[in-house]
Amino acid sequence: MDLRQPSSTVYGMRLKEAIVLLIFAICSKAANSNPYRRPITDTQESAGATAAYCLSWRLAVEANNLRAWRTVPIQCLRYIEGYMTLGQYERDLNFIVENIINDYIEEIILENDGSDAWILDVDDTCISNLLYYKGKRFGCDPFDPMAFKTWALKAECSAVPAVLILFNKLMEKGIKIFLITGRDEITLGQATLDNLYNQGFIGYERLILRSKAYRGKSAIIYKSEIRKQLVEEGYKIWGNVGDQWSDIQGDCVGERTFKLPNPMYFVP
Amino acid sequence: MDLRQPSSTVYGMRLKEAIVLLIFAICSKAANSNPYRRPITDTQESAGATAAYCLSWRLAVEANNLRAWRTVPIQCLRYIEGYMTLGQYERDLNFIVENIINDYIEEIILENDGSDAWILDVDDTCISNLLYYKGKRFGCDPFDPMAFKTWALKAECSAVPAVLILFNKLMEKGIKIFLITGRDEITLGQATLDNLYNQGFIGYERLILRSKAYRGKSAIIYKSEIRKQLVEEGYKIWGNVGDQWSDIQGDCVGERTFKLPNPMYFVP
Repeated sequence: MDLRQPSSTVYGMRLKEAIVLLIFAICSKAANSNPYRRPITDTQESAGATAAYCLSWRLAVEANNLRAWRTVPIQCLRYIEGYMTLGQYERDLNFIVENIINDYIEEIILENDGSDAWILDVDDTCISNLLYYKGKRFGCDPFDPMAFKTWALKAECSAVPAVLILFNKLMEKGIKIFLITGRDEITLGQATLDNLYNQGFIGYERLILRSKAYRGKSAIIYKSEIRKQLVEEGYKIWGNVGDQWSDIQGDCVGERTFKLPNPMYFVP
Repeated sequence: MDLRQPSSTVYGMRLKEAIVLLIFAICSKAANSNPYRRPITDTQESAGATAAYCLSWRLAVEANNLRAWRTVPIQCLRYIEGYMTLGQYERDLNFIVENIINDYIEEIILENDGSDAWILDVDDTCISNLLYYKGKRFGCDPFDPMAFKTWALKAECSAVPAVLILFNKLMEKGIKIFLITGRDEITLGQATLDNLYNQGFIGYERLILRSKAYRGKSAIIYKSEIRKQLVEEGYKIWGNVGDQWSDIQGDCVGERTFKLPNPMYFVP
């Protein structure tokens, strides 16, 4: 390994190496075939225990066992940083879109009468707040509504690549896309429209933001009521994708729901 | 490291070492502080990619994105074996019971009128089929109903430790426990009763097995109807724990549901 190479490459190499060793430890039956064997120090043992704990914590979040949590446990800061920025988060998103949602879309028989619909959430579904959450220690700091508003007004969220691909596939298929977000309509409406447009989300049917009537209501109640209205308008909701369980629970959730990973925050 | 020690210990040491290296790769910013640095071979690179894929696959299963899957992908055999047998599965179960369900139980205000109820699934919730699935390549082989029946008739499933602790806590609290299982009542009733008893599940309110009327029905429909009957009898279902999404979906699911991990099979 050339130490003059950029540190991100070194980083990546070391991650690969570590993953490989994990596989070795799990897979290999031959006790004396591991060239990396050496004693474990107390510090290393404790780092291993922390990673195992944080993996359990993340699974509990994604399986909807852990609810209404306010912040990422501080001991999981580096773990969540690693998960979000070193490739596994992106791999998880790609897996869901490429191996699950695409297969589902191939199999469904559309009505083709203008009623075929699909729902996408906005924050950390279509567009990413990862850059913002980097400054909030990946969710270890509590939610800061004013700072988030300032961030969202910049309209600088980048597209979530897997979801942009999904978006374009749905558009090609002739499925009408409804974007439903808990963002406030009056203060963040224009910035959200601009941000979606500058990131390539173009041609969707409707962007629905939280109007005055839904202020203070939980996402489950607000989004359920919006979906119910769409169904009453005659739409058939084939799919519903969000990074929060509250995006895909409640009424009229759609024929199939898909939960994208997000270990950084919980929206009730 | 003493190579004469039992291989399970060697195994554990090597797993710890690998986990530690993973943490190192994720956490450490200093490119030149890793004493394990060495070139990655093609085989190692491919093993790392497989582990990353299998982690995405397992997350998709546990978050209920992947449904109606028949077998574990063959490339994930070693990964799932490692997950199930080297500690993370047990840690995940302990986390859910100790850090989530216990907290929930502490917070609820019971009716204390004999109506407080809790539902537990049986297979891979109260008692474990891990030994059986070891012979079925941890789910890489398709479900084999006759072989499973032969296994279940032995009444040799061992208790899932975390769930036995939960069971005893619920008993102490005076909550009535209902065990609901998709196992066939006529052929497996006695063996299941015996197995639960010999593993320490003693004092529950009722064991409900699949009667003739529910043969061929999906678990969601069968279990929903049973729960509905319990609610009509006047029970308040505070919690509902199962290893399958079909245990905790449908009607009358309970005040809170908890999904235990199980990457070995899918019950519709």
